[in-house]
Amino acid sequence: MKREDLSLYLVTDRPLSLGRDIDWVVTEAVKGGATMVQLREKDCDTREFIRLAAKLKEALSPLGVPLLINDRVDVALAVDADGVHIGQSDMPYETARRLLGPDKIIGLSVENMDEVIEANGLDVDYIGISPVYSTATKTDTAGPFGLDGLAEAVKLSVHPTVAIGGMNQKTAFDVIRTGADGIAVVSAICSADSPEKASRELYAIIEEARRSPISKAQA
Amino acid sequence: MKREDLSLYLVTDRPLSLGRDIDWVVTEAVKGGATMVQLREKDCDTREFIRLAAKLKEALSPLGVPLLINDRVDVALAVDADGVHIGQSDMPYETARRLLGPDKIIGLSVENMDEVIEANGLDVDYIGISPVYSTATKTDTAGPFGLDGLAEAVKLSVHPTVAIGGMNQKTAFDVIRTGADGIAVVSAICSADSPEKASRELYAIIEEARRSPISKAQA
Repeated sequence: MKREDLSLYLVTDRPLSLGRDIDWVVTEAVKGGATMVQLREKDCDTREFIRLAAKLKEALSPLGVPLLINDRVDVALAVDADGVHIGQSDMPYETARRLLGPDKIIGLSVENMDEVIEANGLDVDYIGISPVYSTATKTDTAGPFGLDGLAEAVKLSVHPTVAIGGMNQKTAFDVIRTGADGIAVVSAICSADSPEKASRELYAIIEEARRSPISKAQA
Repeated sequence: MKREDLSLYLVTDRPLSLGRDIDWVVTEAVKGGATMVQLREKDCDTREFIRLAAKLKEALSPLGVPLLINDRVDVALAVDADGVHIGQSDMPYETARRLLGPDKIIGLSVENMDEVIEANGLDVDYIGISPVYSTATKTDTAGPFGLDGLAEAVKLSVHPTVAIGGMNQKTAFDVIRTGADGIAVVSAICSADSPEKASRELYAIIEEARRSPISKAQA
């Protein structure tokens, strides 16, 4: 279903966007093929966060690209975003679901196999397997899954999966071949000279990996 | 109405609480006479914020002391708090009212006379006049109102008013005599050896000021 096409999932990052406007980076990335956008802001005030979220929603809605808000259910409610992405130290999943209702997308980060199994008991819309590789973007996570760990998590999970942490033009092919439904990209798009071109390249690699003969079962 | 007794309004501050648990400080303050509590957390993650808010709500509800949440409407919704306190860079008032409904308390900080007048056009439940005096607690505000500015703001406002910024045993008497409905106290309670004793002293001063012959009109 288009509404939850996790293939090329952009996670915004203001410091990594090299001084360029977040909404410009997002618009360019979507032109290049990004299928989903998560607005992540850690340091801005609530009013600015809402202003930016409203602007992105206005840009993305006509294109059918879902906008998720990282952590902040209040911001998601304020702009009627398509959902939220929450981590293990954000609002508990059940509370977020109660506040957002059954129709919104809720994704949950999992950082180890126990959390993958725990998420199987929740009706989350997808899990973000994080991190696959070590990265400078996220410093508050446990050790990385690695490619084998990712493949195991993908098999264990009853939910759609998106891989996060170290996703770029070099890693995307192998990651998609584990059976993950998508890659969540931060710096490889936000810091690219051309976020559009980077997204186009990544999307092509995802398609190529999906056409490759090695299936999830064989991985 | 008890539900909005602004008289002695405690605003929590983790760094100023000298390593003591927020819920201990709050409980002690309420024993001493605090009539309202605002949970303000700037740096903790959402899950911890909700956990603390739920704990305070459980403690305060039986006592009839309202719990407001600073800025975070999601946290207020998560624990069904009595309301929120928002500043000029937080969620816009109309959005907060839409998400919280007509029955919750919403207070708004005003930092100058223009904002006092602007707030008169909103159905906020009270305004926080901030800061009355310069203080180390808030560094992101405009110049202080001073006692004369506070008196003018109180007269201008159609809403109940609470004075914030430099409220302590030395300033409370004059502040209440301007006609302000209450004082919002941070360090004079959070950093006190005995938050209970400090609250008791402050409450006594508020009562004494209200009994004094100088009325709001004469101030």
